[in-house]
Amino acid sequence: MRADIITIGDEILIGQIVDTNAAFLGKALNKIGVEVRQIRSISDEKEAILEAFSEAQNNVDLVVITGGLGPTKDDITKHTLCEYFDDSLVFYPEVMAHIEMLFSKYVKAPVNALNRSQAMLPSTCKQLFNHHGTAMGMWMQKENTVFVSLPGVPFEMKYLVNEYLIPGIKKTFSLPALVNKTMMTFGLGESIIAEKISDWEHALPPHIKLAYLPNLGRVRLRLSAKGTDQATLRNEIDVLFDALYPLIGENIKGFESEEPIEMQIGNSLNQKSWTLATAESCTGGALAALFTKNAGASSYFKGSVVSYATELKHTILDVSKDIISEYSVVSEPVALAMAKGVLRQTNADIAVATTGNFGPSKGDADAEIGTVCIAIITPEQEVTETFCFGKHRERNLQKTLNKALELLHGMLVH
Amino acid sequence: MRADIITIGDEILIGQIVDTNAAFLGKALNKIGVEVRQIRSISDEKEAILEAFSEAQNNVDLVVITGGLGPTKDDITKHTLCEYFDDSLVFYPEVMAHIEMLFSKYVKAPVNALNRSQAMLPSTCKQLFNHHGTAMGMWMQKENTVFVSLPGVPFEMKYLVNEYLIPGIKKTFSLPALVNKTMMTFGLGESIIAEKISDWEHALPPHIKLAYLPNLGRVRLRLSAKGTDQATLRNEIDVLFDALYPLIGENIKGFESEEPIEMQIGNSLNQKSWTLATAESCTGGALAALFTKNAGASSYFKGSVVSYATELKHTILDVSKDIISEYSVVSEPVALAMAKGVLRQTNADIAVATTGNFGPSKGDADAEIGTVCIAIITPEQEVTETFCFGKHRERNLQKTLNKALELLHGMLVH
Repeated sequence: MRADIITIGDEILIGQIVDTNAAFLGKALNKIGVEVRQIRSISDEKEAILEAFSEAQNNVDLVVITGGLGPTKDDITKHTLCEYFDDSLVFYPEVMAHIEMLFSKYVKAPVNALNRSQAMLPSTCKQLFNHHGTAMGMWMQKENTVFVSLPGVPFEMKYLVNEYLIPGIKKTFSLPALVNKTMMTFGLGESIIAEKISDWEHALPPHIKLAYLPNLGRVRLRLSAKGTDQATLRNEIDVLFDALYPLIGENIKGFESEEPIEMQIGNSLNQKSWTLATAESCTGGALAALFTKNAGASSYFKGSVVSYATELKHTILDVSKDIISEYSVVSEPVALAMAKGVLRQTNADIAVATTGNFGPSKGDADAEIGTVCIAIITPEQEVTETFCFGKHRERNLQKTLNKALELLHGMLVH
Repeated sequence: MRADIITIGDEILIGQIVDTNAAFLGKALNKIGVEVRQIRSISDEKEAILEAFSEAQNNVDLVVITGGLGPTKDDITKHTLCEYFDDSLVFYPEVMAHIEMLFSKYVKAPVNALNRSQAMLPSTCKQLFNHHGTAMGMWMQKENTVFVSLPGVPFEMKYLVNEYLIPGIKKTFSLPALVNKTMMTFGLGESIIAEKISDWEHALPPHIKLAYLPNLGRVRLRLSAKGTDQATLRNEIDVLFDALYPLIGENIKGFESEEPIEMQIGNSLNQKSWTLATAESCTGGALAALFTKNAGASSYFKGSVVSYATELKHTILDVSKDIISEYSVVSEPVALAMAKGVLRQTNADIAVATTGNFGPSKGDADAEIGTVCIAIITPEQEVTETFCFGKHRERNLQKTLNKALELLHGMLVH
């Protein structure tokens, strides 16, 4: 059971948008055992679309298409599907009623001819009713290949995937079991890991594949197994990963969770009934934003003081001017004083503070570009640490967030 | 002059990562007049890679490949290139010296056989020296098609693109002019715009293409022109866009800039020598993070108070309990009081405050889910506004950030 993902739209090819739809689809398909052969992003041109349909049909059982279903002239997916399937568009009154309802409720404008055209769908398609928009999804079959066309608006696409695509695939195809699990390691480069685990790697059975995913000082090791039974594969992978502890044990930091680390931290805080606040200089609010983007954050996240300007460390967080002048603004004593300050200001149980110099220029700090100090205070411990990350601003932000979350996670989940 | 982008790695197909490399490459190529025919993401499998190479060679002048250049067993791009080019790997001493230097400086471990293998490159390739990592880029040619292979680590890939790929393309190919410009509109759905501009759209010359990009209450209209002279195309596009003002003038809100709106705001603040602070409830630090992620933010951004818990609005921002109980925490008076509070705390010239209820549950607020109040105070004006965005947390965050930036931009740039 293999699938292609085809995303249609010049905005992807010219880099105007990042194609997050493909990643969402890849993850959703993989989870139920559908192997994605390729993702192909093509132009809004009939010939390109027809060629992609035909190439996919020769190779896979399922083709998932996103984009090009809007009401305007550049949206040609539906007409091209009709041409490919030698079908024609017919009027669906229930879709028209839905479009009229959306217009009267949200758009507050009369339905025009272009909107009306969205109620026209190929006569042989099974419609996937889009309750959140005017572009319906379509499920069609040609010989042994199923084609599913979805709108490109991420929110509508996701709804149709969860509501119709995944259940439809489960009903239509007999699926193998696919299992992925990813081990996190810190502190060793990929070539050094590869050397240490070389015998283990060469002995992997053919149905289990290893990938090295290096990024910003971490290497993740992903095992992907294909077979007939999910539980058996999970067990095989667990046994294989266990065998890595004698080889690189001290560098293993657990497994990548379906849940992002900030949500794991949130859960742990909820369990302990502890609240969190952040005092941020170099991270500039990004740490707080990571926590608060998740629903339910208000049960443990109190707030943040982003003291980006040096003076605010003094005026709001009450970091003494003496400490700043003695140790400089990027220093462990200042980070610790910021953490203490935000605890006083917020009455939280835990504080995370960051101060650093991300570059490209030095700013108020004496410290080298890339120096970052993190302080964490919990009811049980106080930790401060200094890191030297390098010269690249964007990476320094990401590395600081990663480190702060890792440290906090480590202190909460023993 | 057409190009394909091929990104190699199962992590893309299973949705473990979002393929941002392809978007970066698409943008960089488009900017210099290279038309990207397709982006294709494929598995780390020899047959898939060989097939993709050959399909691309039959269709385009340039193939840009990312990924699969690491030192480990799953990295097979280099060997597959050799097979495709009927070439063999040879040892490059200068690459070895660079790898040894990186190891002694950063990894602090001896170079092993796997790292040594990264100094082996195809004998006919022109190496693109990667000063930031151990995987070199490669430039090779087969018949009339150039193949350029780049590492998948975004940071290293970007460096090689700017340093070698773009200059190399300019030297090797004669390039047409491509111009894209995107007009922003608010307040009209795409079908309504399409109806209003229908005659204009049908009269577009064949070398200029229109795309509608709807997202979260905005529709962007992109014109893409292809020709021989950049200036002529720019002028044609400007004349065409000018003709839209009589048709949908009141809904046009300028053009999408190469510069994100938060940087335009930063530039305007620098010009006026004004500083900015934010007081954030529902946006939870994300607004501050948007400003501070850009280098140079410290010249205008003072800081933020993220008063996520209701009590902090009172304790840090000095919003009176009476206002909160009279109007509820999601209200314009509270937003305004938060803005005033953060001005007092930071001495900034401008404050932006957000309070809202993003859902999924109601929290401390009486307001309907999706209600957001924004207040902005500048030395010239005070503005508060209430929005009803809908039920979806993630979208509500994005819409609030967009609105806050738009309002502030409008107040600064008259």
